[in-house]
Amino acid sequence: MTPKTAEARAVERANQAFYDAVENSDLDALEAVVLDGPLAESVAVVHPGWPVLRGRREVMRSFALIMANTDYIQFFLTDVEVGVDGDAAVVTCTENILTGGPEDDDPGSLVGGLVVATNVFRRTPEGWRLWVHHGSPVLAEQDDETAAAEHEE
Amino acid sequence: MTPKTAEARAVERANQAFYDAVENSDLDALEAVVLDGPLAESVAVVHPGWPVLRGRREVMRSFALIMANTDYIQFFLTDVEVGVDGDAAVVTCTENILTGGPEDDDPGSLVGGLVVATNVFRRTPEGWRLWVHHGSPVLAEQDDETAAAEHEE
Repeated sequence: MTPKTAEARAVERANQAFYDAVENSDLDALEAVVLDGPLAESVAVVHPGWPVLRGRREVMRSFALIMANTDYIQFFLTDVEVGVDGDAAVVTCTENILTGGPEDDDPGSLVGGLVVATNVFRRTPEGWRLWVHHGSPVLAEQDDETAAAEHEE
Repeated sequence: MTPKTAEARAVERANQAFYDAVENSDLDALEAVVLDGPLAESVAVVHPGWPVLRGRREVMRSFALIMANTDYIQFFLTDVEVGVDGDAAVVTCTENILTGGPEDDDPGSLVGGLVVATNVFRRTPEGWRLWVHHGSPVLAEQDDETAAAEHEE
Protein backbone atom coordinates (compact mmCIF):
# COMPACT_ATOMS: atom_id res chain seq x y z
CA MET A 1 0.00 0.00 0.00
CA THR A 2 1.10 3.57 -0.62
CA PRO A 3 1.68 5.88 2.36
CA LYS A 4 -1.56 7.18 3.82
CA THR A 5 -2.78 10.44 2.37
CA ALA A 6 -4.61 13.08 4.43
CA GLU A 7 -7.83 11.75 2.89
CA ALA A 8 -7.07 8.18 3.92
CA ARG A 9 -6.33 9.37 7.45
CA ALA A 10 -9.68 11.20 7.54
CA VAL A 11 -11.43 7.98 6.47
CA GLU A 12 -9.53 6.03 9.13
CA ARG A 13 -10.69 8.53 11.76
CA ALA A 14 -14.30 8.06 10.64
CA ASN A 15 -13.80 4.31 10.84
CA GLN A 16 -12.43 4.63 14.39
CA ALA A 17 -15.33 6.92 15.35
CA PHE A 18 -17.72 4.18 14.23
CA TYR A 19 -16.10 1.57 16.48
CA ASP A 20 -15.77 4.05 19.36
CA ALA A 21 -19.51 4.74 19.14
CA VAL A 22 -20.35 1.02 19.37
CA GLU A 23 -17.76 0.45 22.10
CA ASN A 24 -19.22 3.31 24.15
CA SER A 25 -22.84 2.27 23.45
CA ASP A 26 -23.28 5.82 22.19
CA LEU A 27 -26.20 5.87 19.76
CA ASP A 28 -25.92 9.64 19.26
CA ALA A 29 -22.29 9.31 18.21
CA LEU A 30 -23.32 6.46 15.90
CA GLU A 31 -26.08 8.62 14.39
CA ALA A 32 -23.37 11.14 13.53
CA VAL A 33 -21.24 8.52 11.76
CA VAL A 34 -23.88 6.69 9.72
CA LEU A 35 -24.75 8.20 6.33
CA ASP A 36 -28.00 10.12 6.14
CA GLY A 37 -29.81 12.01 3.38
CA PRO A 38 -30.70 10.74 -0.11
CA LEU A 39 -28.66 7.54 0.33
CA ALA A 40 -30.16 6.64 3.72
CA GLU A 41 -32.31 3.92 2.16
CA SER A 42 -29.23 2.21 0.73
CA VAL A 43 -27.27 2.10 4.00
CA ALA A 44 -26.53 -1.56 4.58
CA VAL A 45 -25.13 -3.49 7.52
CA VAL A 46 -24.30 -7.14 8.04
CA HIS A 47 -23.52 -8.07 11.64
CA PRO A 48 -21.46 -11.27 12.01
CA GLY A 49 -23.69 -14.23 11.17
CA TRP A 50 -26.71 -12.04 10.47
CA PRO A 51 -28.64 -11.47 7.26
CA VAL A 52 -28.36 -8.10 5.50
CA LEU A 53 -30.06 -5.13 7.12
CA ARG A 54 -30.89 -2.43 4.62
CA GLY A 55 -31.88 1.17 5.28
CA ARG A 56 -30.63 3.55 7.93
CA ARG A 57 -33.65 3.09 10.22
CA GLU A 58 -33.30 -0.70 10.31
CA VAL A 59 -29.55 -0.41 10.81
CA MET A 60 -29.81 2.00 13.74
CA ARG A 61 -32.44 -0.23 15.34
CA SER A 62 -30.10 -3.22 15.14
CA PHE A 63 -27.31 -1.29 16.84
CA ALA A 64 -29.70 -0.21 19.60
CA LEU A 65 -30.58 -3.89 20.05
CA ILE A 66 -26.93 -4.94 20.14
CA MET A 67 -26.05 -2.22 22.62
CA ALA A 68 -28.96 -3.28 24.84
CA ASN A 69 -27.70 -6.86 24.77
CA THR A 70 -24.03 -6.10 25.30
CA ASP A 71 -22.67 -5.28 28.71
CA TYR A 72 -19.18 -4.75 27.48
CA ILE A 73 -17.49 -4.65 24.13
CA GLN A 74 -14.05 -3.58 23.06
CA PHE A 75 -12.58 -3.56 19.58
CA PHE A 76 -8.89 -3.89 18.89
CA LEU A 77 -8.55 -3.11 15.21
CA THR A 78 -5.71 -4.63 13.24
CA ASP A 79 -4.84 -4.84 9.53
CA VAL A 80 -6.62 -1.55 8.86
CA GLU A 81 -6.33 -0.81 5.15
CA VAL A 82 -7.90 2.20 3.46
CA GLY A 83 -8.60 2.71 -0.23
CA VAL A 84 -9.95 6.10 -1.29
CA ASP A 85 -11.24 6.97 -4.73
CA GLY A 86 -13.19 10.14 -5.31
CA ASP A 87 -16.18 10.28 -3.00
CA ALA A 88 -16.03 6.68 -1.85
CA ALA A 89 -13.60 4.88 0.40
CA VAL A 90 -13.27 1.26 1.44
CA VAL A 91 -11.78 0.19 4.76
CA THR A 92 -10.99 -3.40 5.55
CA CYS A 93 -9.94 -4.35 9.04
CA THR A 94 -9.85 -7.16 11.54
CA GLU A 95 -11.91 -6.63 14.68
CA ASN A 96 -10.35 -8.41 17.63
CA ILE A 97 -13.36 -8.31 19.93
CA LEU A 98 -13.62 -8.66 23.67
CA THR A 99 -17.26 -8.83 24.61
CA GLY A 100 -19.67 -9.74 27.33
CA GLY A 101 -23.45 -9.64 27.43
CA PRO A 102 -26.31 -10.53 29.71
CA GLU A 103 -27.08 -13.52 27.50
CA ASP A 104 -24.24 -14.53 25.25
CA ASP A 105 -26.46 -16.89 23.27
CA ASP A 106 -29.03 -14.19 22.62
CA PRO A 107 -29.43 -13.44 18.90
CA GLY A 108 -28.94 -9.76 19.76
CA SER A 109 -25.45 -10.39 21.11
CA LEU A 110 -22.51 -9.79 18.85
CA VAL A 111 -20.39 -12.76 17.92
CA GLY A 112 -17.15 -12.35 19.82
CA GLY A 113 -13.64 -13.23 18.82
CA LEU A 114 -12.21 -12.63 15.39
CA VAL A 115 -14.31 -10.70 12.90
CA VAL A 116 -13.30 -9.22 9.58
CA ALA A 117 -15.03 -6.11 8.37
CA THR A 118 -15.49 -4.22 5.16
CA ASN A 119 -16.64 -0.67 5.72
CA VAL A 120 -17.56 1.67 2.89
CA PHE A 121 -17.55 5.40 3.54
CA ARG A 122 -19.07 8.18 1.50
CA ARG A 123 -17.76 11.73 1.37
CA THR A 124 -20.30 14.34 2.48
CA PRO A 125 -19.98 18.09 3.11
CA GLU A 126 -19.80 17.19 6.83
CA GLY A 127 -17.11 14.58 6.39
CA TRP A 128 -16.88 10.85 5.69
CA ARG A 129 -19.96 8.85 6.63
CA LEU A 130 -20.52 5.09 6.93
CA TRP A 131 -22.47 3.72 3.96
CA VAL A 132 -21.91 0.00 4.42
CA HIS A 133 -20.60 -2.15 7.27
CA HIS A 134 -20.18 -5.87 6.74
CA GLY A 135 -18.67 -7.91 9.54
CA SER A 136 -18.19 -11.65 9.43
CA PRO A 137 -16.66 -14.26 11.69
CA VAL A 138 -13.40 -15.87 10.66
CA LEU A 139 -14.33 -19.54 10.86
CA ALA A 140 -11.21 -21.22 9.50
CA GLU A 141 -7.56 -20.70 10.21
CA GLN A 142 -6.99 -20.00 6.54
CA ASP A 143 -3.41 -20.13 5.46
CA ASP A 144 -4.21 -19.16 1.92
CA GLU A 145 -0.57 -18.48 1.04
CA THR A 146 0.20 -22.13 1.66
CA ALA A 147 -3.01 -23.39 0.12
CA ALA A 148 -2.51 -21.27 -3.00
CA ALA A 149 1.11 -22.39 -3.24
CA GLU A 150 0.01 -26.02 -3.09
CA HIS A 151 -2.42 -25.33 -5.87
CA GLU A 152 0.20 -23.76 -8.10
CA GLU A 153 2.41 -26.04 -10.15
CA MET B 1 -36.36 1.26 -2.74
CA THR B 2 -37.05 3.47 -5.72
CA PRO B 3 -37.61 1.91 -9.14
CA LYS B 4 -34.37 0.79 -10.71
CA THR B 5 -32.64 3.33 -12.89
CA ALA B 6 -30.67 2.41 -16.03
CA GLU B 7 -27.52 2.82 -13.92
CA ALA B 8 -28.78 0.47 -11.24
CA ARG B 9 -29.64 -2.09 -13.90
CA ALA B 10 -26.12 -1.81 -15.33
CA VAL B 11 -24.68 -2.44 -11.86
CA GLU B 12 -27.00 -5.41 -11.42
CA ARG B 13 -25.76 -6.85 -14.71
CA ALA B 14 -22.15 -6.47 -13.55
CA ASN B 15 -23.10 -8.20 -10.30
CA GLN B 16 -24.69 -11.07 -12.22
CA ALA B 17 -21.62 -11.30 -14.49
CA PHE B 18 -19.50 -11.76 -11.37
CA TYR B 19 -21.58 -14.70 -10.13
CA ASP B 20 -21.83 -16.19 -13.63
CA ALA B 21 -18.03 -16.15 -13.88
CA VAL B 22 -17.65 -18.04 -10.60
CA GLU B 23 -20.50 -20.42 -11.46
CA ASN B 24 -18.85 -21.20 -14.81
CA SER B 25 -15.35 -21.45 -13.31
CA ASP B 26 -14.40 -18.86 -15.91
CA LEU B 27 -11.30 -17.02 -14.67
CA ASP B 28 -11.09 -14.91 -17.84
CA ALA B 29 -14.65 -13.68 -17.36
CA LEU B 30 -13.79 -12.96 -13.73
CA GLU B 31 -10.68 -11.01 -14.80
CA ALA B 32 -13.01 -8.83 -16.87
CA VAL B 33 -15.30 -8.12 -13.92
CA VAL B 34 -12.74 -7.38 -11.18
CA LEU B 35 -11.45 -3.81 -10.99
CA ASP B 36 -7.98 -3.21 -12.39
CA GLY B 37 -5.77 -0.15 -12.74
CA PRO B 38 -4.76 2.33 -10.02
CA LEU B 39 -7.21 0.82 -7.50
CA ALA B 40 -6.09 -2.78 -8.05
CA GLU B 41 -4.16 -2.80 -4.77
CA SER B 42 -7.31 -1.88 -2.85
CA VAL B 43 -9.51 -4.61 -4.32
CA ALA B 44 -10.74 -6.62 -1.34
CA VAL B 45 -12.57 -9.90 -1.00
CA VAL B 46 -13.86 -11.84 1.98
CA HIS B 47 -15.02 -15.36 1.18
CA PRO B 48 -17.47 -16.82 3.71
CA GLY B 49 -15.56 -17.58 6.91
CA TRP B 50 -12.25 -16.40 5.48
CA PRO B 51 -10.04 -13.50 6.53
CA VAL B 52 -9.77 -10.46 4.25
CA LEU B 53 -7.85 -10.84 1.00
CA ARG B 54 -6.51 -7.55 -0.24
CA GLY B 55 -5.15 -6.72 -3.68
CA ARG B 56 -6.31 -7.94 -7.08
CA ARG B 57 -3.57 -10.55 -7.43
CA GLU B 58 -4.37 -12.20 -4.11
CA VAL B 59 -8.08 -12.08 -4.87
CA MET B 60 -7.73 -13.71 -8.28
CA ARG B 61 -5.55 -16.41 -6.79
CA SER B 62 -8.20 -17.23 -4.20
CA PHE B 63 -10.85 -17.60 -6.89
CA ALA B 64 -8.56 -19.89 -8.87
CA LEU B 65 -8.18 -21.97 -5.71
CA ILE B 66 -11.93 -22.06 -5.08
CA MET B 67 -12.65 -23.02 -8.68
CA ALA B 68 -10.06 -25.81 -8.48
CA ASN B 69 -11.74 -27.14 -5.34
CA THR B 70 -15.32 -26.85 -6.53
CA ASP B 71 -16.84 -29.40 -8.85
CA TYR B 72 -20.14 -27.64 -9.05
CA ILE B 73 -21.53 -24.39 -7.79
CA GLN B 74 -24.74 -22.55 -8.53
CA PHE B 75 -25.92 -19.24 -7.14
CA PHE B 76 -29.55 -18.33 -6.83
CA LEU B 77 -29.51 -14.65 -5.94
CA THR B 78 -32.35 -13.20 -3.94
CA ASP B 79 -32.96 -9.85 -2.21
CA VAL B 80 -30.75 -8.07 -4.73
CA GLU B 81 -30.67 -4.38 -3.77
CA VAL B 82 -28.63 -1.79 -5.63
CA GLY B 83 -27.60 1.66 -4.42
CA VAL B 84 -25.78 3.90 -6.89
CA ASP B 85 -24.15 7.20 -6.07
CA GLY B 86 -21.80 8.84 -8.51
CA ASP B 87 -19.00 6.47 -9.42
CA ALA B 88 -19.65 3.92 -6.70
CA ALA B 89 -22.44 1.41 -6.27
CA VAL B 90 -23.29 -1.02 -3.50
CA VAL B 91 -25.13 -4.26 -4.10
CA THR B 92 -26.41 -6.41 -1.28
CA CYS B 93 -27.82 -9.81 -2.04
CA THR B 94 -28.44 -13.25 -0.62
CA GLU B 95 -26.57 -16.08 -2.30
CA ASN B 96 -28.54 -19.30 -2.11
CA ILE B 97 -25.73 -21.69 -2.97
CA LEU B 98 -25.79 -25.22 -4.29
CA THR B 99 -22.29 -26.59 -4.26
CA GLY B 100 -20.21 -29.70 -4.45
CA GLY B 101 -16.50 -30.20 -4.28
CA PRO B 102 -13.94 -32.99 -4.25
CA GLU B 103 -13.35 -32.38 -0.56
CA ASP B 104 -16.10 -30.45 1.14
CA ASP B 105 -14.00 -29.95 4.26
CA ASP B 106 -11.10 -28.53 2.27
CA PRO B 107 -10.34 -24.93 3.24
CA GLY B 108 -10.46 -24.05 -0.45
CA SER B 109 -14.10 -25.12 -0.71
CA LEU B 110 -16.77 -22.47 -0.49
CA VAL B 111 -19.14 -22.64 2.42
CA GLY B 112 -22.46 -23.77 0.95
CA GLY B 113 -25.94 -22.81 1.94
CA LEU B 114 -27.05 -19.30 2.79
CA VAL B 115 -24.55 -16.52 2.29
CA VAL B 116 -25.12 -12.78 2.35
CA ALA B 117 -22.94 -10.58 0.21
CA THR B 118 -22.02 -6.95 -0.04
CA ASN B 119 -20.49 -6.08 -3.39
CA VAL B 120 -19.09 -2.65 -4.17
CA PHE B 121 -18.71 -1.63 -7.79
CA ARG B 122 -16.71 1.21 -9.28
CA ARG B 123 -17.57 3.00 -12.50
CA THR B 124 -14.83 2.81 -15.15
CA PRO B 125 -14.75 3.90 -18.81
CA GLU B 126 -15.30 0.19 -19.63
CA GLY B 127 -18.26 -0.20 -17.31
CA TRP B 128 -18.88 -1.14 -13.69
CA ARG B 129 -16.14 -3.23 -12.08
CA LEU B 130 -16.06 -5.15 -8.79
CA TRP B 131 -14.06 -3.31 -6.12
CA VAL B 132 -15.10 -5.26 -3.03
CA HIS B 133 -16.86 -8.57 -2.44
CA HIS B 134 -17.68 -9.64 1.09
CA GLY B 135 -19.64 -12.83 1.58
CA SER B 136 -20.56 -14.26 4.96
CA PRO B 137 -22.55 -17.23 6.18
CA VAL B 138 -25.90 -16.59 7.83
CA LEU B 139 -25.43 -18.46 11.10
CA ALA B 140 -28.61 -17.61 12.95
CA GLU B 141 -32.20 -17.58 11.90
CA GLN B 142 -32.42 -13.95 12.82
CA ASP B 143 -35.91 -12.58 13.10
CA ASP B 144 -34.68 -9.09 13.81
CA GLU B 145 -38.12 -7.55 13.29
CA THR B 146 -39.38 -9.56 16.24
CA ALA B 147 -36.24 -9.08 18.28
CA ALA B 148 -36.25 -5.33 17.70
CA ALA B 149 -39.96 -5.15 18.51
CA GLU B 150 -39.31 -6.96 21.79
CA HIS B 151 -36.62 -4.44 22.56
CA GLU B 152 -38.85 -1.46 21.89
CA GLU B 153 -41.20 -0.33 24.62
